[in-house]
Amino acid sequence: MSARENGGSRSSRRGFLAAAGFAAVAGSSLGAGAAPARASDPAAAASQGGQEPFWGRHQGGIATPPQSHTYFAAFDLVTAERGAVVAMLQAWTAAAARMAKGLPIEAFEETEIAYAAETGTVTTSDDEPAPVKVAAADSGEAEGLPAARLSLTFGFGAGIFIKDGKDRYGLAARRPAALVDLPRFVGDQLVEAHSGGDLSVQACADDPQVAFHAVRQLARLAGDRVQLRWAQTGFLPPVPAKHTPRNLMGFKDGTNNPPVTDPAAMDKFVWVGGEGPDWMRGGSYLVARRIRIALEHWDRTKLAFQEQTVGRHKHSGAPLGGKDEFEPLDLTAADKDGNPVIAENAHVRLAAAASHGGAQILRRGYSYNDGASFTAERWPPWRQGMEYDAGLFFLCYQRDPRTGFIKIFEPMAKLDMMNQFVTHVGGGIFACPGGVARGEYIGERLFAGA
Amino acid sequence: MSARENGGSRSSRRGFLAAAGFAAVAGSSLGAGAAPARASDPAAAASQGGQEPFWGRHQGGIATPPQSHTYFAAFDLVTAERGAVVAMLQAWTAAAARMAKGLPIEAFEETEIAYAAETGTVTTSDDEPAPVKVAAADSGEAEGLPAARLSLTFGFGAGIFIKDGKDRYGLAARRPAALVDLPRFVGDQLVEAHSGGDLSVQACADDPQVAFHAVRQLARLAGDRVQLRWAQTGFLPPVPAKHTPRNLMGFKDGTNNPPVTDPAAMDKFVWVGGEGPDWMRGGSYLVARRIRIALEHWDRTKLAFQEQTVGRHKHSGAPLGGKDEFEPLDLTAADKDGNPVIAENAHVRLAAAASHGGAQILRRGYSYNDGASFTAERWPPWRQGMEYDAGLFFLCYQRDPRTGFIKIFEPMAKLDMMNQFVTHVGGGIFACPGGVARGEYIGERLFAGA
Repeated sequence: MSARENGGSRSSRRGFLAAAGFAAVAGSSLGAGAAPARASDPAAAASQGGQEPFWGRHQGGIATPPQSHTYFAAFDLVTAERGAVVAMLQAWTAAAARMAKGLPIEAFEETEIAYAAETGTVTTSDDEPAPVKVAAADSGEAEGLPAARLSLTFGFGAGIFIKDGKDRYGLAARRPAALVDLPRFVGDQLVEAHSGGDLSVQACADDPQVAFHAVRQLARLAGDRVQLRWAQTGFLPPVPAKHTPRNLMGFKDGTNNPPVTDPAAMDKFVWVGGEGPDWMRGGSYLVARRIRIALEHWDRTKLAFQEQTVGRHKHSGAPLGGKDEFEPLDLTAADKDGNPVIAENAHVRLAAAASHGGAQILRRGYSYNDGASFTAERWPPWRQGMEYDAGLFFLCYQRDPRTGFIKIFEPMAKLDMMNQFVTHVGGGIFACPGGVARGEYIGERLFAGA
Repeated sequence: MSARENGGSRSSRRGFLAAAGFAAVAGSSLGAGAAPARASDPAAAASQGGQEPFWGRHQGGIATPPQSHTYFAAFDLVTAERGAVVAMLQAWTAAAARMAKGLPIEAFEETEIAYAAETGTVTTSDDEPAPVKVAAADSGEAEGLPAARLSLTFGFGAGIFIKDGKDRYGLAARRPAALVDLPRFVGDQLVEAHSGGDLSVQACADDPQVAFHAVRQLARLAGDRVQLRWAQTGFLPPVPAKHTPRNLMGFKDGTNNPPVTDPAAMDKFVWVGGEGPDWMRGGSYLVARRIRIALEHWDRTKLAFQEQTVGRHKHSGAPLGGKDEFEPLDLTAADKDGNPVIAENAHVRLAAAASHGGAQILRRGYSYNDGASFTAERWPPWRQGMEYDAGLFFLCYQRDPRTGFIKIFEPMAKLDMMNQFVTHVGGGIFACPGGVARGEYIGERLFAGA
């Protein structure tokens, strides 16, 4: 174990990268500046060394411009001790802030690691939060990699408030009214191994290894206080700014989102305001759905039928009959026979705000691809066999799920023409508290007030 | 369906990208030049618009510098018609050559697609191979994306030669001696849903959507001639040139590979020479293994133990006791008590060429991350529950598996200290023929000679 390998200096991942000339090649948002990001808005942060700010009024990973990869994990709390949960959230906060800067959860120097592993002693690092106490050191697979715009978004499921009728942590009275149990929607085929959870962690980064690394460190810090319940990876193709990525159906996905750059729209549709409990102000509710797409079936249909199903042109993304992706949906347009240009059961019509009294949600989903699994097709000729286990890991944020996802999706579950190609096979609902101020830990106002 | 949306021009993905100014942001290997790649060596090609050459003496995806993502698929042939297999391989060849240039399998224009979908007519595009006949058009999810250094590597499993005792295509006598059935290694827990296959397609690209798109188009072209048997995604962190990426154990992986830039080493260890059948010359044998890593277990061990297990330092990648990643392994070094510095059962010792009479293989693996699945631990305290379904998708190429993977791995399966953390849960062995000349189709010399 030789300290000489590090030349005796404190090496950060950032420093390593600068030395390797990595900044020039690592991706679109990685600028030349190696200075720590202190910006309070995502746009500025994105230009400062590929880092997203951790501290702020809102959690990252919601209004943050989507990174190219996600690793989402849901955990069940298995400790009965309220103090153990608080200590874990404190450790998570410190670790998350460090990892958002591309730092390991402990300073990655072999001698320190050896000591930390042996003795549990810890070191401090400049102006960063002190490294957290941990039985073993950072697992190391992100060593040498940039922060990759890592964001970590934490959520609380119903089980942190009450589980099996038990108020484990004295929080039952503080469960927000908006954190409802999702109803069973028509067509739901949710499986246990992809559903629920007392806690959610959504890690997003421009590198899948960085995203997974982050969740893995949090799981290690949590130790025996949690059990992993399910996890899901996702990806987006890298597209130029202002271009909408295509989903695995080949259509642009996300065109009609409320604009994250419009604070009024975000306050109206996404951020919890005065109606919520104090600890949820500036927060948002996350609904996650693992939506398997029958890609083989979809691929056997004709383009015109696909476009009727979606209600948009595949190539341009424009509404049917239109030319430009961003032109408004004209739901009243009719052809010469008086039939609607966009069918009554087309996906975009049923999803449109106009069909729900103006309701909107912020979709921030990823495609997922878990290889292949056995499928019994629900359509002629009733084929059975291995098919792509791939689709959309739908993530959406909203001020209130009752007037957001539930309101919008309930009729879609019944009527959407797209339902013959998609099946909701998992998911969950989580209350993501407001952002964290320096010195605070994630969810502190929930626990402190109870 | 309006041709106006395309301005009446033939748009290629390449053209779209140039127009969108995408070249500047898409990745490390995407240079400014939008000209088609005509280079015959990977290094030159990598500088030309992020394209890897499809035609050549060797298939791409072997000596090609590893892309950041893979999508690997194994198919079973279900047709009894030799001609149907040949026609499929012809279609695959043409489509693969187009996709390697960032082109859809058909020119992506709505009117053409509509016609093609309705009538099966096809169009041609400049000097590219003519688009192939297909029941529906390109599925479109790579529209707007660069070629992303896509490579497609095709392999033949034992089942194309003989299956269930049946010589379906008249090729049984041409099965190469080197295409053995892999023995059952100690500790193997191979599952059907991740093993075998008559055909393999390894798609590698710097974008997971591009890699999956490519395999999906091939599957569509194959239609009912094949059934998907298993599929696996994988990723590598983007590291600067000449840096070795870390695997999910946090260690650098791939340090001791034979150098792809050394033709003599490649001819000796990787490319099939005069000893093989004509159609395998310039080809290579692929052994794939899906190796699940018990990451939770690994993460609970101390750094010093991890380093003893691997035989290298975690941070530097140097052999135990050494300082530099690339310094030679000294397997004779002993400590003051006479004990070996690198343990008898350390991973690097057992994997080293010196332990196998100089045998070497070209490892070209990826990490994989399929979320979480139920696991019963094989170690105290015998925990059961959801654990990371993640690990190493080990891919290696060699001139002869009998003197390559089998020779190297057989003793490792018995002795490697790392085996307490890894389990081989799937894989296959495939004969990847030599590269394809223009006008030829993949595997043509196999079929033509029979």
